[in-house]
Amino acid sequence: MGSALIQLVHEQADGIEARTGLRLEIGRVAVRNASKDRGVDLPRDRFTNDATSVVNDPDVDIVIEVIGGIEPARQLILDALKAGKPVVTANKELLANVGGEIFATAEASGVDVLFEAAVGGGIPLVRPLRESLLGEPIDLVMGIVNGTTNYILTRMTESGASYADALAEAQELGYAEADPTADVEGYDAGAKIAILASIAFGARVVAGDVYHEGISAITADDISFAGRNGFVVKLVAIAEKLSQDGPLELAVRVHPVMLPLTHPLASVRGSFNAVFVQGSAVGELMFYGRGAGGNPTASAVLGDLIDAGLNLRKGSSASVGALGEVRVRPIDELESEYYLHLNVFDRPGVLSAVAGVFGAHGVSISAMNQGLPHDEGADLVFITHKALERDVQDTLRDLRELDAVHEVGSVIRVLVDETGGS
Amino acid sequence: MGSALIQLVHEQADGIEARTGLRLEIGRVAVRNASKDRGVDLPRDRFTNDATSVVNDPDVDIVIEVIGGIEPARQLILDALKAGKPVVTANKELLANVGGEIFATAEASGVDVLFEAAVGGGIPLVRPLRESLLGEPIDLVMGIVNGTTNYILTRMTESGASYADALAEAQELGYAEADPTADVEGYDAGAKIAILASIAFGARVVAGDVYHEGISAITADDISFAGRNGFVVKLVAIAEKLSQDGPLELAVRVHPVMLPLTHPLASVRGSFNAVFVQGSAVGELMFYGRGAGGNPTASAVLGDLIDAGLNLRKGSSASVGALGEVRVRPIDELESEYYLHLNVFDRPGVLSAVAGVFGAHGVSISAMNQGLPHDEGADLVFITHKALERDVQDTLRDLRELDAVHEVGSVIRVLVDETGGS
Repeated sequence: MGSALIQLVHEQADGIEARTGLRLEIGRVAVRNASKDRGVDLPRDRFTNDATSVVNDPDVDIVIEVIGGIEPARQLILDALKAGKPVVTANKELLANVGGEIFATAEASGVDVLFEAAVGGGIPLVRPLRESLLGEPIDLVMGIVNGTTNYILTRMTESGASYADALAEAQELGYAEADPTADVEGYDAGAKIAILASIAFGARVVAGDVYHEGISAITADDISFAGRNGFVVKLVAIAEKLSQDGPLELAVRVHPVMLPLTHPLASVRGSFNAVFVQGSAVGELMFYGRGAGGNPTASAVLGDLIDAGLNLRKGSSASVGALGEVRVRPIDELESEYYLHLNVFDRPGVLSAVAGVFGAHGVSISAMNQGLPHDEGADLVFITHKALERDVQDTLRDLRELDAVHEVGSVIRVLVDETGGS
Repeated sequence: MGSALIQLVHEQADGIEARTGLRLEIGRVAVRNASKDRGVDLPRDRFTNDATSVVNDPDVDIVIEVIGGIEPARQLILDALKAGKPVVTANKELLANVGGEIFATAEASGVDVLFEAAVGGGIPLVRPLRESLLGEPIDLVMGIVNGTTNYILTRMTESGASYADALAEAQELGYAEADPTADVEGYDAGAKIAILASIAFGARVVAGDVYHEGISAITADDISFAGRNGFVVKLVAIAEKLSQDGPLELAVRVHPVMLPLTHPLASVRGSFNAVFVQGSAVGELMFYGRGAGGNPTASAVLGDLIDAGLNLRKGSSASVGALGEVRVRPIDELESEYYLHLNVFDRPGVLSAVAGVFGAHGVSISAMNQGLPHDEGADLVFITHKALERDVQDTLRDLRELDAVHEVGSVIRVLVDETGGS
């Protein structure tokens, strides 16, 4: 990403100067190994392994942070902001954990902290939310913000591959890490939705507030059931306003959903990202593009860099504004429709026993399918009406204890379409 | 739209003040009939029918123009800008025709002219293009920017309706005007793509530069052929960079295309709008949402209003920057693949005669289908390889003169997918 940015600044500097009068120049670059050749058109003596000296250099006007992680990035950014230097960062982990501190410091110093690249790669998303939609009462932000998992789910959907095979393929292509946990278990998406929730609702939401489930338990059967019924399985990150009046209450979570094929997010394929926004005046919006990769990320950083430069020249700065308090409602208290896959022993009375467990917890069934029996018993698929997570979990616990039930398989929330295309 | 904006400002003023310190108040409103009750929560004496007095009122800090058309909007906006008052406008006709003059006046006065609502209604689009992507080398902007025609084409696609029936339905629902010409013949989309081209490429493109074809000749047969072959017919507005080096050359045009179903724009249904952008660093982006309607448009105006207010407080202003010269290449010199529908007399030698005409003009055929003969002859459908518009027009002229040809039906450009989902 660093090299792509240096290259992009070189290529675009003349054009940017012609349109804005602003001359961008890469002053100094802190790297782990300053003597390594990076194949970029920059004198060797611009590189150093002392990041603090870059931040403190009086010739450096704007600091770009692409280290990742919390320390030393946090301290370097705070130092830069306190010294009156705007900061451009792509660091989602930092912002999702200590964003409040960073934003407050920027505000107090009257300088920019810009972070378009932290969520959705090259997609202009943070700025529209912060600025264009500042006056818009937002009800919902729902995004496909992790390209790795979307690639895996797309492969499973389009080629019928198993999760393991699709993951292996993603790893081979460089879309997934050797240890894919951060992506496939929803940590990465959780950090991103914490940031989006903060700016969309003006509220202090941190990564630790975000409930997350990943995709590693999704089976080819689930995907195929979804397809036959007009759905597609996607890993989505959701921040939703629950309160109409009074203190702000949000639901913020990451989990797979069965999404109707007519939903705008359903057609987001492969490693692409998209964020769907529902506002009470603006209606439905979606922002779509490349969520990762050196060039898209460099493009987002460059956009911020120009903005910071223009603001610096005008003695002005953008602001996230004050982040208010918020209650994040626990997952137990949220309602959804659910898809449940059970494997049961093929014998009389099973269905009635299973149905009885649902009924005992007040979970109402909206559709049910029993496949033909096979060697390992019979497969039952249920779609529930809207039910409380806590009641569904209680139902699952009791189903697991039922003699007739061989295995409780996938449990996937179902999104019923209330949007789209008229 | 005016009433929706006044309502939205009332509802959101407290929230906006809490987040930004900015207090928005509707000062005065110029209307044609000042005594009519508009059902908004604003004292009757704030209304006047003298727009000039509103612009000149020393208590008015920011002027919002939603009159539409060129005069008197142009003069009022110029007066406001020269008096140092930022202007928020939703006037696509004005900007597509005399945008250069408006932008230059704003620049000279050091105040904002903001126009998010002029293209794509509530979709944050103008600001991302102007600001986030200022440093991005953009290759292509392609949009569904007219909701009326997209609604009509969606109905034709999904219900098999004829153009006339779908138009009548759109008129009944208020999606189309009694005189639908501006929408269905592509004038509205032409004005919008002129504005998008100007800001995406920093070049002076006016409505008169834009070639446009509408959808009134599209038949149910064309739509059905498209569907059977993995395409959907959409009216798109395109601004494309043709020059790699040297003076800027663009193609800017509005016409129906057969779009592959895998293209992100293909799933934009009903009256929704979306703009697809291809940049050489950022890759593919798409912005999707409600392109029209009182509330979405009011949302976009409010976003601009907050921005103008914040800039005013900081003594700063946004800028479109200098718009450069550009050559817009005439449609005759553009290349595309084409779908052509011919109705021929069912007799020997017809196909060879028709194929001979294509060959004589160097138009190469990539696929061909002949339907079973019926009462009115036989239908031939051709898909060409990439061909020059001028050669295709010459081919069509000669085909019309051919004895064997009963009628030359639809001619629709075909977009071959080079994008999407990996």
